[in-house]
Amino acid sequence: MGFVPEVSSVPARSAVVPARRALPGAPFLVAARGERPGRVPVWFMRQAGRSLPEYRALREGVPMLDACFDPEMLAEITLQPVRRHHVDAAVLFSDIVVPLKAAGVEIDIVPGTGPVVDRPVRDAAAVRALPALEPEQVAKVAEGVGLLVDRLGETPLIGFAGAPFTLASYLIEGGPSRNHEHTKALMHSEPRLWHDLAGRLADVAVTFLRAQLDAGADAIQLFDSWAGALSERDYREFVLPHSTRVLEAVAAYRVPRFHFGVGTGELLVAMRDACADVVGVDWRVPLDEAVRRLGGEAVVQGNLDPALLHASWPVLEAEVRRIVEEGRAARGHIFNLGHGVLPGVDPDVLTRVVELVHSL
Amino acid sequence: MGFVPEVSSVPARSAVVPARRALPGAPFLVAARGERPGRVPVWFMRQAGRSLPEYRALREGVPMLDACFDPEMLAEITLQPVRRHHVDAAVLFSDIVVPLKAAGVEIDIVPGTGPVVDRPVRDAAAVRALPALEPEQVAKVAEGVGLLVDRLGETPLIGFAGAPFTLASYLIEGGPSRNHEHTKALMHSEPRLWHDLAGRLADVAVTFLRAQLDAGADAIQLFDSWAGALSERDYREFVLPHSTRVLEAVAAYRVPRFHFGVGTGELLVAMRDACADVVGVDWRVPLDEAVRRLGGEAVVQGNLDPALLHASWPVLEAEVRRIVEEGRAARGHIFNLGHGVLPGVDPDVLTRVVELVHSL
Repeated sequence: MGFVPEVSSVPARSAVVPARRALPGAPFLVAARGERPGRVPVWFMRQAGRSLPEYRALREGVPMLDACFDPEMLAEITLQPVRRHHVDAAVLFSDIVVPLKAAGVEIDIVPGTGPVVDRPVRDAAAVRALPALEPEQVAKVAEGVGLLVDRLGETPLIGFAGAPFTLASYLIEGGPSRNHEHTKALMHSEPRLWHDLAGRLADVAVTFLRAQLDAGADAIQLFDSWAGALSERDYREFVLPHSTRVLEAVAAYRVPRFHFGVGTGELLVAMRDACADVVGVDWRVPLDEAVRRLGGEAVVQGNLDPALLHASWPVLEAEVRRIVEEGRAARGHIFNLGHGVLPGVDPDVLTRVVELVHSL
Repeated sequence: MGFVPEVSSVPARSAVVPARRALPGAPFLVAARGERPGRVPVWFMRQAGRSLPEYRALREGVPMLDACFDPEMLAEITLQPVRRHHVDAAVLFSDIVVPLKAAGVEIDIVPGTGPVVDRPVRDAAAVRALPALEPEQVAKVAEGVGLLVDRLGETPLIGFAGAPFTLASYLIEGGPSRNHEHTKALMHSEPRLWHDLAGRLADVAVTFLRAQLDAGADAIQLFDSWAGALSERDYREFVLPHSTRVLEAVAAYRVPRFHFGVGTGELLVAMRDACADVVGVDWRVPLDEAVRRLGGEAVVQGNLDPALLHASWPVLEAEVRRIVEEGRAARGHIFNLGHGVLPGVDPDVLTRVVELVHSL
C-alpha cells in the first residue's frame, strides 16, 4: 500500500521564481543538463573544509554551527576550494543539521562524533513538538549565498540539504548511528508517526533549499547519506515519497537536482525516481554499470573512492582515467568522489585530480 | 593481471582428516548441502553474546579475549543461545582477532571501540615481523571445541575465522575504520606488500579453522565483515585469491563453508567464487534476487535486518515470513540475520523468531 504524502505545510510556489544567472558555458551545468560540455566537469563532496589549511586557519576557535550561520565566513570557506583547485562548481559550506538548528531543534555538532541531539525524537509528542523552519531563520545562510553568487563569477554554486531519512535518523537515534535500529523500528512499527516526521523534515528541506535558490544557487544536491542502510523495498515505501516531494518542490527553479547517498547500488533507480536529474554513485558500482541500471539517458556523478586519494599518483591517475572513460557511457557525467573528501588528504592531490580530469 | 598466491607456508593436508560426526538429520547441514530439510534451519550471527543476561553474568569482569581462550567459558557461552533459543546450529564464541592475539600480535579489544592494534602494520618490516600462527597457540580454543562437540548432541557447531581483508584492515588502520583508507591505499600502491600481508593472514585463518575442524567443528564461516567497502574489481584483484585459498585449504574436511560480509550485494558472485558452499546475504538484497545473481543452484543464508528485532511483533513476523518465502527460490536456505545481533535486543524476540521459522 503506497503512502501518499499529505499536502505540505510549506506553501507551493508558482512558476514565479527569481531569474537565474545565465551561465550558459559552465561545464557543470551543461553536463547536468545531459549535454556535452567542453571538458568533463569536476567538484568534490566536502571540498570546502577540513582538508584545506586555509579552512583550518579560518575556523580556528569557531564552532562548526557558528561558521555555518556567518555569511562572510561561510562564503569564504565555500570559495577556498574553488580558488585552490579550480573545480567546476562551488558547494555551499553547510551541514545537514543547519536547518534543524535554525528551526530551534536542540542539536549540536560534537567534533569527532558528529551531530548530537539533546532529546531523541521517538514518540508522537516529540514529533509534534518539532518546530517548522521559517525562511527568515536561515536568512544568514541566504545572505552568504548572495555574497557567493556575486563573488563566484562564472562558477556555479550548488545548494545543499539533508534528505528526510538521514535527518530523521539523527533525530531518532540521537546522533550518528551504524545500524539505525530505532529509526527502522519506528518506521516499520509506527508508519503514521514515521510519515508525519519524514513529512515535517521534507518541509524543512524544501524551505532550506528554496532559501538558497531564492538567493541565487544554481543547482541543488539532496544528501541522503545513510539511505544505503535501507533495502529498496523499505526505501520505496518509507523514504521515496518524502524525498520526491522535496525535489518536486524545487522543480520550478529549473536548476539541476542532484541526489546522493553512499552504498546505494541497490537504490540508484529509486533515487532517480525521486525526481532527481543527476544521480550520485559511490565507488562500489562502476559508472557504466550504474548507467546500465538507470537506462541510457542517465546523468551521473561520481565515483572515485575517496580512500584512493591516499594512494600513489600512478594508481590515482589510472583510477581517474578509468572513471572518466566509464562516465562516457552516460548522457552526462560530473566527476566527483564516491563520498566526501576525508580529513588528512593532501590538498595538492585534489588539485592534480582536477587538472587531470580537465585534460581528458 | 591476476594475482597467483604463492605456495602457502601452512602445510597442505592430505585427505586424511578426522572422521566427522554423523549428523545426518541436522536441518542446518541438510540445507547447507542444498537438500531439503524437514524445517528451515535458523541461527543468528552473534547469537552468543551481549544480548543474553546469562552471558553478561558469566562475562562479568572477564575481558573479551580472556573469555575466548578459556575452554570452559567459551564452550558455555557458545551453548547458551542453543539452550535458550533452540537454534539449529551453535557458532563458536570467538572474535576475528583471536588467532592474531594467539600468534602474539599486540592487539586488544577495547569495550565500545573494538579491536585496537598497538602498532599499525603499514610497511614491509611490519609485515615481515607478523608472527605465523602455530596450532598449539590456539589449543585452548580447540579444547573448547572438543567440549562443545561432546555437549551439543545433535546440534552442529560452526567454526569461525576472520577473512584476510577484514583482518588486514584492523592491522593496517590500527582499529575499526569507516573508510579503510590506509588499507585501500596500501593494496593499490604497494600490491606486492599487500599480497604478502594478505597471504600471511590467509595462513593464520587456515591454521585457526583447521584447529577447530580437527577438534570436531561441523561447518565453518569465513567472516569478511568489511568486504562490502570494496568494489567488485578491487575485491577480485586483491581479496578473492586469498579468501579462496582459505576456503580451499579446508575443502578436505568436507564440511559446508559459509562466506559472509555486510553490504556485499555487488560481491555475492565473487564471494561464492571463493569456493564458498553457502553465501551469506545482508538485508539489502532480497534472497530471491540474491539467488538470481548467484544462479539457481545457490545455497544462501540470511537475511533479516537485525534492526527489525526492535520493531513490533506483527512487523517482525511479516518480515520473517517474507524472507522464508523468498528463500524458497534457493536450493538451500539457512535463516539468519543480515548482520549480527545488536546489543539491547530482547532475547525473547529471538526465541520467538526461531519458533516462527520452524513453524513455516
